[in-house]
Amino acid sequence: MRPGLRLGVDLGGTHVKMALVERSGRVKALVQVDTVKDPRVLVARLKESVRPWLGRKLLGTGVGVAGDVDPAQGSVRFSPNLGWHHVPLKDLLRSAGFPRPLFVENDANAAAWGAYHLEMKRRCTHLIVLTLGTGVGGGVVLNGRLYRGITGSAGELGHVSIDPDGTPCGCGSSGCLETFLGAAYLKDWMRREMERQGRKMPDQWSPQDMHKAARQGDRMALRLWERAGRALGVGLANFINIFNPDTILLCGGIAGASDFLLRYARPEIRQRTFQTPRRAVRIRVAKGNQQLGVVGSALLVE
Amino acid sequence: MRPGLRLGVDLGGTHVKMALVERSGRVKALVQVDTVKDPRVLVARLKESVRPWLGRKLLGTGVGVAGDVDPAQGSVRFSPNLGWHHVPLKDLLRSAGFPRPLFVENDANAAAWGAYHLEMKRRCTHLIVLTLGTGVGGGVVLNGRLYRGITGSAGELGHVSIDPDGTPCGCGSSGCLETFLGAAYLKDWMRREMERQGRKMPDQWSPQDMHKAARQGDRMALRLWERAGRALGVGLANFINIFNPDTILLCGGIAGASDFLLRYARPEIRQRTFQTPRRAVRIRVAKGNQQLGVVGSALLVE
Repeated sequence: MRPGLRLGVDLGGTHVKMALVERSGRVKALVQVDTVKDPRVLVARLKESVRPWLGRKLLGTGVGVAGDVDPAQGSVRFSPNLGWHHVPLKDLLRSAGFPRPLFVENDANAAAWGAYHLEMKRRCTHLIVLTLGTGVGGGVVLNGRLYRGITGSAGELGHVSIDPDGTPCGCGSSGCLETFLGAAYLKDWMRREMERQGRKMPDQWSPQDMHKAARQGDRMALRLWERAGRALGVGLANFINIFNPDTILLCGGIAGASDFLLRYARPEIRQRTFQTPRRAVRIRVAKGNQQLGVVGSALLVE
Repeated sequence: MRPGLRLGVDLGGTHVKMALVERSGRVKALVQVDTVKDPRVLVARLKESVRPWLGRKLLGTGVGVAGDVDPAQGSVRFSPNLGWHHVPLKDLLRSAGFPRPLFVENDANAAAWGAYHLEMKRRCTHLIVLTLGTGVGGGVVLNGRLYRGITGSAGELGHVSIDPDGTPCGCGSSGCLETFLGAAYLKDWMRREMERQGRKMPDQWSPQDMHKAARQGDRMALRLWERAGRALGVGLANFINIFNPDTILLCGGIAGASDFLLRYARPEIRQRTFQTPRRAVRIRVAKGNQQLGVVGSALLVE
């Protein structure tokens, strides 16, 4: 990768983050604006926000978008979060004068690419990134390159089903990893369990509370993490058998509970993987860098 | 790939196939000998068998071995079929004067590479090969190159678990794809079902018979294929969400029943995949080429 600054854009349903990013992944400047749903209005507003930066020599622009993205065309096929259908984002950004070349990518893939640079410092070859948040996202770096698949849709690791007759998933399938590990599903599970015991779900509930409760030995919290951790173990075992990666990286808020998750995941991995690939993989927990998306987007410019 | 002949060796527990293979994948000459377990004796015997070919100009030698192979070292870490532990196969072949360069690969990966050339004529970019035989094997070709993982162990697609509390698998896990689709497990399922109905399993039983029976409307045969086909659908849906491939190829004897398997697999795929990658993938059934292993091994020499 050439030295120099890239412009990264992380385009989410609520906020847009923009950053000037060095080759190393270091953020030189960062700005955040609210998302506007009209693509032309949004692009104009983004342009205004980065105008002070455009006097500098920039190597190009990379954008991560929450949704179904066509990286070859640089367009957004569909984004539920943004309410977009077939938006030619790259063309709009080019017309607005954003630094070229321009790259558009799915946000989870961009974040995985950011994790490869920031969390792993590129010191791995085959990296599987699993992002445990409200949902479960993923991304795959193979031979040190972001793996996109034929339509840019690869790496939907949260929607690998490990229990085909299990909990219905928002994606239309059932028993996806996300239904065991996504914060929204953890909360649902908790509510059902409390109702079963005739208790009421507290108004304020967070996975962080459940992590603290587990540390204090709370049995229901431990059961929550056991269920989630075992499912994580099955999922990671599957990824190890499929990809034979040297590194698996757990990101996202729920990864904060990785002490409990991995306690229950490791026996599953031991049981379900072949010895050689099991010995070859290290499982890491991300340090919690908040800028993986915007940095990964910027570093799409090589 | 350069024009010219390569020497391919497919080293199984019972037989060894050797072939002279053209760049196109066409087999110019083929010889088969029985396997000998002593590595040195085996290599000497293989050398004898191919001696008539060694007068020609050959571009190199590729070997596929049933077992845990280290492609970087060209050694066999462990092969239960051969009873081998840490055999430096590449060194032995080099000392014996086999044409260089030499490549050693896991046999399922070599067969997937052969399928890419012979069955797909290289007309795909991201190919997932699932081989449905006694067991279920796999291999992955990404960006037109065999994907090996960090220790050569990638592509164990038959040991992706889709039912973690399901049937114990020979690999130590449970509910692997293989437990739904491997011929040995199909037979077990059949035996259990017949016993449940107070019937005796016929002495002669083959998946081919069950395929014929299903065509004639036999209800138990249809249930057998429904169970297997639905599991196949879940597995393929997982591979589509993970890899976003343009092609999935079903090989092996059991793929002969793909009319029934896919009848039950397709609704699962529809339910469990995102629209864009689902539309982008074609599912093919191999024509039943018997030489995928030896041809793929030969074509490891590029």
